Amino acid sequence: MNRITTLFGIQYPIIQAGMIWCAGWELASAVSNAGGLGLIGAGSMTPDVLRNQIQKCKGATNKPFGVNVPLIYVQTDEVIEIIIDEKVPVVFTSAGNPGKYTAHLKSHGIIVVHVIANLKFALKAVEAGVDAIVAEGFEAGGHNGIEETTTMALIPMIREKVHIPLIAAGGIAGGPQMLAAFALGADAVQIGSLFVSSFESSAHPAFKQAIIDASDGSTSLMLKQLVSVRLLKNPFYEQVKNAEQSGATVEELKTLLGKGRAKRGMFEGDLVDGELEIGQVSNIIHKIKSVNDIFETLIAEYNLAKQNHLPEIL
Amino acid sequence: MNRITTLFGIQYPIIQAGMIWCAGWELASAVSNAGGLGLIGAGSMTPDVLRNQIQKCKGATNKPFGVNVPLIYVQTDEVIEIIIDEKVPVVFTSAGNPGKYTAHLKSHGIIVVHVIANLKFALKAVEAGVDAIVAEGFEAGGHNGIEETTTMALIPMIREKVHIPLIAAGGIAGGPQMLAAFALGADAVQIGSLFVSSFESSAHPAFKQAIIDASDGSTSLMLKQLVSVRLLKNPFYEQVKNAEQSGATVEELKTLLGKGRAKRGMFEGDLVDGELEIGQVSNIIHKIKSVNDIFETLIAEYNLAKQNHLPEIL
Repeated sequence: MNRITTLFGIQYPIIQAGMIWCAGWELASAVSNAGGLGLIGAGSMTPDVLRNQIQKCKGATNKPFGVNVPLIYVQTDEVIEIIIDEKVPVVFTSAGNPGKYTAHLKSHGIIVVHVIANLKFALKAVEAGVDAIVAEGFEAGGHNGIEETTTMALIPMIREKVHIPLIAAGGIAGGPQMLAAFALGADAVQIGSLFVSSFESSAHPAFKQAIIDASDGSTSLMLKQLVSVRLLKNPFYEQVKNAEQSGATVEELKTLLGKGRAKRGMFEGDLVDGELEIGQVSNIIHKIKSVNDIFETLIAEYNLAKQNHLPEIL
Repeated sequence: MNRITTLFGIQYPIIQAGMIWCAGWELASAVSNAGGLGLIGAGSMTPDVLRNQIQKCKGATNKPFGVNVPLIYVQTDEVIEIIIDEKVPVVFTSAGNPGKYTAHLKSHGIIVVHVIANLKFALKAVEAGVDAIVAEGFEAGGHNGIEETTTMALIPMIREKVHIPLIAAGGIAGGPQMLAAFALGADAVQIGSLFVSSFESSAHPAFKQAIIDASDGSTSLMLKQLVSVRLLKNPFYEQVKNAEQSGATVEELKTLLGKGRAKRGMFEGDLVDGELEIGQVSNIIHKIKSVNDIFETLIAEYNLAKQNHLPEIL
């Protein structure tokens, strides 16, 4: 249908982001079974857990799926070998140098996609030989680029210079936003927050409810001195904000963040002391739904918007 | 053609933002003559200058045009009376309470539009009886909302709750972005940076060239403690950044900003000590063009993107 669906061998140009603590085999296989591309988020898994999740995913779907690998973790070499050993068809790499594993993965027949938030890394990824790139805007949840370029401003800039398939991420939780992403020049969308809120995600139910309750201005990009991350505003966010406003050093911020904050918030449902990574589009997510319902709604809304929103301008 | 073109009596749903120091009668009349809605930016004009600019605009076009009035200035009462006296057909108000002048302006037959960046002020504007609203995203140049909601995330949220005509602003400098804005649910676009860079704008040629030279990450939202404003990065921006990072107080920031910074930068072309307000989309503005060329390009790109970018998803 288009070059992204052809590349991955999927029905719809809809990719589920491989988010930490939320994207296990249940979510990834449900998305792949619905006709999109599901991704397991390796960033919050030990190598053993990841292997187990991949095997369960293969048992739950015969459609293509992938693994998202943030390149900042220590066990990346081991993770990459597990992925090759388990014959995972697709890998998305993020948060690191796309030159490091691309050729190695591709030599095993794996399709490689790299996530970027600026032009410099887009060009690096192309040079590394990736099959496609994800360009992620400022409005996205979780880790984010220092340029703060939004999806509206990012996609056309990347499209001018990059000619391989391009996936837009950040700000997409409904059919009109999906249509907008294509209008900007993307070949597919990657959706995070909306799938975090789904029944099949492994996010804690209290976190899912917090996404439903979120509205205008409920998130903020924080910790820019460490690594920018978009957080849902909660008491932990307030602590970070106060520390930053009183001029905390990088070391002080690292101490405040500590270990296991994201697990505590997103997986264990501690809405007070946990770190809750989510996108601005939680402002239009109003109901916890199944992955199948989400696909049905997205596609119906897309077609309605395509039919009704776009005036003839001659 | 749609409810915005009908409301204003214009040919294209394209509105030129009424920016300080850049939007005089030459720009506004050129945009109106090209089939859009041109706006004179009253924010940088004394009442006498504004009257003169309105009269010159009336001499240069017989098409509808408007005036943008930021409500934060001291002489707003006088400015509003001049606009009524000169029978300006359209007023855009921004940066203030939409309840203050809307009924008064409408009682004189003037179409009133209010600029917002969040849901609360959108609902206030509707309650005040405005004819349309502009929803402006984080990527826009100049003054900006504290929620930092991007155009992708803002427009669908506003569209859910607001049923009067909606104009999208922020992140629009090309046909694909214009198509995206409509996809999101807007009825028209308001374009700033691209018109600042036009031949007809009263921006200093050195500032126009700086927009052409800008690329990825060239702007940043600053002065959030005073009033958020997106600036082109230059030595003055560095001074602001250093002051903010070392914990400057609001008073210290006000002193640093001083008086006349925007005029010095944008109108007088002082790229070192001047304040240069511009949007993220300066990353895709590569050439200084006439307003007529800009309209031709926008419409051709819009139609090309509409024809080629949007896949069938069934």
